[in-house]
Amino acid sequence: MAEDKRSRQRMVAGAADMISRRGLNATSVRELAKHADAPLGSTYHYFPGGKYDLATEAVRWADDLTVDVLSRELAAGPRAGLQAFLDMWRKVVLDSDFRAGCPVLAVSVEDLPDDHNAPRDAAAAAFRRWTALLAESLRKSGCQEAEAERVATLIVAAVEGTVAMCRAQRSIAPLDQVTAQLSLIVDQVTR
Amino acid sequence: MAEDKRSRQRMVAGAADMISRRGLNATSVRELAKHADAPLGSTYHYFPGGKYDLATEAVRWADDLTVDVLSRELAAGPRAGLQAFLDMWRKVVLDSDFRAGCPVLAVSVEDLPDDHNAPRDAAAAAFRRWTALLAESLRKSGCQEAEAERVATLIVAAVEGTVAMCRAQRSIAPLDQVTAQLSLIVDQVTR
Repeated sequence: MAEDKRSRQRMVAGAADMISRRGLNATSVRELAKHADAPLGSTYHYFPGGKYDLATEAVRWADDLTVDVLSRELAAGPRAGLQAFLDMWRKVVLDSDFRAGCPVLAVSVEDLPDDHNAPRDAAAAAFRRWTALLAESLRKSGCQEAEAERVATLIVAAVEGTVAMCRAQRSIAPLDQVTAQLSLIVDQVTR
Repeated sequence: MAEDKRSRQRMVAGAADMISRRGLNATSVRELAKHADAPLGSTYHYFPGGKYDLATEAVRWADDLTVDVLSRELAAGPRAGLQAFLDMWRKVVLDSDFRAGCPVLAVSVEDLPDDHNAPRDAAAAAFRRWTALLAESLRKSGCQEAEAERVATLIVAAVEGTVAMCRAQRSIAPLDQVTAQLSLIVDQVTR
């Protein structure tokens, strides 16, 4: 049972990585299974709905992982949470030599087949959760409600966009610039 | 000859739109031709290198269009330029009912086959040009050099990320939030 759970988990994490590299529309269930070193049959065993079921879980997995990091680090204040959020994506981009990014962004910028919108809905939920956590932390540090909402949205948008810029330019420089500017902004609004 | 140029142009604009909707890896030359209402043969006539040649031109076309808007509007200052940049993407997202976005972002977040990196290189160049134009305008309005670079990078990253958030959430609200916050930031640093 524990082994079962571990293989399922490995499949989901593998799918998240693969989708962040290649996109969802261009990736088959066969490739997702291969990337996770899993037999094709077990993919259908765990995800009878196929590719879009697995992709939805992959987006939720990336969402939960990010929520865990944010929740833990925001306990020390919005500046620490922001730094952890940025460091997380920095590691993904550098460890993959600029080939991997964010699976949540990946499914957001692909028009999915009409009856397979679950991965995109999971992405929308992820963006909302991250924004809400950041906004709550900013409010707790003295930021006004409307401003907290605006700055939190800016942080999520900027981090996602920067990962794409870094991948295009094969350089971490955009993330350095955005890290510096967002840190200044958070300091300003919580002063 | 003029007719020739117009069909080529229509193919390039159609490819940019299609790539922004579906991604590049998932789209065939056949689908790109169909989307632009062009015979498949003429695609190979104009783009003998096939899909990646056409995609590279599509990214450059989106880049040039954006540079035209930015150059024209930044003449009235960074705030006007920022507004035009944001309005441009707002129109793309709303006119397509949240189905289209930015072709430059699309090719940035897909790992392309090893010998077909030209679309991604074109995307890197696009991000650099937009950032440079915004930074130059901020400097002219009294912003320090390093700050101008940081704020310009933040603007490009945030706008790209916001388009993805709007598409995921099927809502223009993230763009409203980011527009308000970026406008405040530009006012602050050019005051």
